[in-house]
Amino acid sequence: MRIEVINTGTELLLGKVVNTHACYFGQELFKLGLRVQRQLTIPDGDDIRDALASAFPRSDVILITGGLGPTSDDVTREVVAAMLGLELHLKEDVLEEVNAFFKVRGLTPNQSNERQAMVPDGAEVLSNPYGTAPGLYLPAADDGSSPHLFLLPGPPRELKPMFKDLVFPRMADLRGGNSEAGVWHNFRIYGVGESSIAGELDPLFEADESVELGYCARLGEVDVRLIGQADAVEKAAERVREIYAEDIVAESEEPIEKVLVDMLSDRGETVATAESCSGGEIASTITNVPGSSRALLSGFVTYSNESKTAILGVDPELIREHGAVSGAVVEQMVEGCLRVSGADHAIAVSGIAGPDGGSEEKPVGTVYLGIASRGGETFVKRYFSPSDRISFKLRITRLAIDLMRRRLLGFPLD
Amino acid sequence: MRIEVINTGTELLLGKVVNTHACYFGQELFKLGLRVQRQLTIPDGDDIRDALASAFPRSDVILITGGLGPTSDDVTREVVAAMLGLELHLKEDVLEEVNAFFKVRGLTPNQSNERQAMVPDGAEVLSNPYGTAPGLYLPAADDGSSPHLFLLPGPPRELKPMFKDLVFPRMADLRGGNSEAGVWHNFRIYGVGESSIAGELDPLFEADESVELGYCARLGEVDVRLIGQADAVEKAAERVREIYAEDIVAESEEPIEKVLVDMLSDRGETVATAESCSGGEIASTITNVPGSSRALLSGFVTYSNESKTAILGVDPELIREHGAVSGAVVEQMVEGCLRVSGADHAIAVSGIAGPDGGSEEKPVGTVYLGIASRGGETFVKRYFSPSDRISFKLRITRLAIDLMRRRLLGFPLD
Repeated sequence: MRIEVINTGTELLLGKVVNTHACYFGQELFKLGLRVQRQLTIPDGDDIRDALASAFPRSDVILITGGLGPTSDDVTREVVAAMLGLELHLKEDVLEEVNAFFKVRGLTPNQSNERQAMVPDGAEVLSNPYGTAPGLYLPAADDGSSPHLFLLPGPPRELKPMFKDLVFPRMADLRGGNSEAGVWHNFRIYGVGESSIAGELDPLFEADESVELGYCARLGEVDVRLIGQADAVEKAAERVREIYAEDIVAESEEPIEKVLVDMLSDRGETVATAESCSGGEIASTITNVPGSSRALLSGFVTYSNESKTAILGVDPELIREHGAVSGAVVEQMVEGCLRVSGADHAIAVSGIAGPDGGSEEKPVGTVYLGIASRGGETFVKRYFSPSDRISFKLRITRLAIDLMRRRLLGFPLD
Repeated sequence: MRIEVINTGTELLLGKVVNTHACYFGQELFKLGLRVQRQLTIPDGDDIRDALASAFPRSDVILITGGLGPTSDDVTREVVAAMLGLELHLKEDVLEEVNAFFKVRGLTPNQSNERQAMVPDGAEVLSNPYGTAPGLYLPAADDGSSPHLFLLPGPPRELKPMFKDLVFPRMADLRGGNSEAGVWHNFRIYGVGESSIAGELDPLFEADESVELGYCARLGEVDVRLIGQADAVEKAAERVREIYAEDIVAESEEPIEKVLVDMLSDRGETVATAESCSGGEIASTITNVPGSSRALLSGFVTYSNESKTAILGVDPELIREHGAVSGAVVEQMVEGCLRVSGADHAIAVSGIAGPDGGSEEKPVGTVYLGIASRGGETFVKRYFSPSDRISFKLRITRLAIDLMRRRLLGFPLD
């Protein structure tokens, strides 16, 4: 099945916003074993006509975003209807939904909203709880002269729920096959590189046509996706579980910080953080999770040497002797953090984020991570993760959260 | 001048990475008063031939990314040469550069690198200090049968420096005009909405064809770009300075956290943070700036009520009476932060990030921000910024940093 994406939006071409639609569609459709073959961005306005005319004969499905709003350059609905020779009719129930959206927000609906309630003959309306313009689905013509068309809103907060709830199931149907096809299963793995995983798993499943593997790596985490027939996927999943056991953070797409917060909440335990080079990123990442107030008791950003001593009680002599980026200092940081915060567990980190401050002995990218727990052993280890300053912070944040997860599960940390 | 962008990369269509090239090109070319008219993403491999064939007659310039590497699906160089009827020759000096890149990293260059040193007749080599594959510039054919072609590497860390140093100046030349054309000036403005700024500035410059305005809004900041002839831009800039005086954070594209760190460093002063709902994001944002250890002394993430009392000395009675999200508590947080840290200035924040925890009196999005300085008055104010949890944290982080900037400059905070 050949799928093309057309994004309309002058702001995308001016660079005002990054186009995340293409990436989102690619990830979601991959779960169905489908691929986007081509993605095109064009300005608002009449260019959509040419773009569709050249995509029609090539495509089985076209996903179109943008151009459904009330302004004069929102022409997608009208252009599509004209190309398919369909008349547009005002649907009262759609208009009511559009107007209700305004009224709830204390706004007065205006005349231009009527355009958003115009629906071509034969189109299914895809309702939009997060915005005014509904989406539209136009099934392919019986004679094959036009592909399946999905007309979707541009703003991601409107597009994503509509895609998930209304487009994804239709794409699953269009892909067809029996109900055995198209199961997918995601493993989120930490602490092993993508090429190492691919090197291990690819040969195992090479000969097996009933299951396909996909990989997606970012910031120290690797997603391994298994796609195929239900029983084949479950069999393959068993193998992956055997091989990566303790490195599997989730069998889903949950972020690692959510996994940690849930584990702590379930146990009724808390964590505190003492951060130098990560500058608060670990605490901020944990608090991105709704309900994290049950899990994170407090955090300290001890960026200066004085604050390491004043707040966490690190011996200034130790800092002079070993430097602030050292195992000895991180050990005192993490134990001080546990003591001062009163939390059940503590994470500490000190490293050289760069671009300056590196030395031959401790180059930029050097970092010491510490984990301490009430009544448990303190763990401190040196890591090396050279990259730009911000990626470095993001990577060691995830590394630290993964170490805490392993500590809670009683896995070896080294 | 009509410009099209073609991105090759199967990983872009699979959603493994977000395509940031289109946005980057759009932003950079906008500085020259140029626009990208169309952006296309295709898989690695032979699709590039059709894509170029249909773009050739429409375009004056085509920017192509990806497909210059050593593997078998990297075919851009060969396809372009064939379409233009140009022979490829091995350039020894390019091969030396490619091999040197490997040797510096302790790797052994291999045979496949020779492909990366093949250059079509008449092409200019764009050297690549951050990767192995150099870029290529093929000027338009004299007879107009082919547009200007830039073949550029896919990885952003290779592409961006090459674009900035080698493509941007050539685009400026191609745009032509006298040296008076194409000056641009950026204002970064905080605390005023995009539509309010556009409503004020657009009518002022409507009749003036010698200067064009552009806007770009994100997370509470608005970039206003003036583009046009040097003297017209300078005159317009004077008007913008008069109108937005204290709201102008930078006349550049510097992030606000860099502006704050520089101001503090110049004065030899320090700041500390006490964060509840922002969870460490303010400290983390400040420490994204290289050299921020001179400016940020320490930070406290006092997420629990107990930690507000234990670490910052907030009166527990006050929390019971007014709630943790209140002006009274934030006042004690910010003054406690100043006292405990020993910094010259302090920022404190407490609010309701959601999705739960809101009430009729204090709905999700309610936040109190506090600013204190040694020997200065303490400022506390309530704000309302409803959005998803993570956007909320990012917005109030920038709002807090802007308040600190205004405090340092002696501007009114209210």
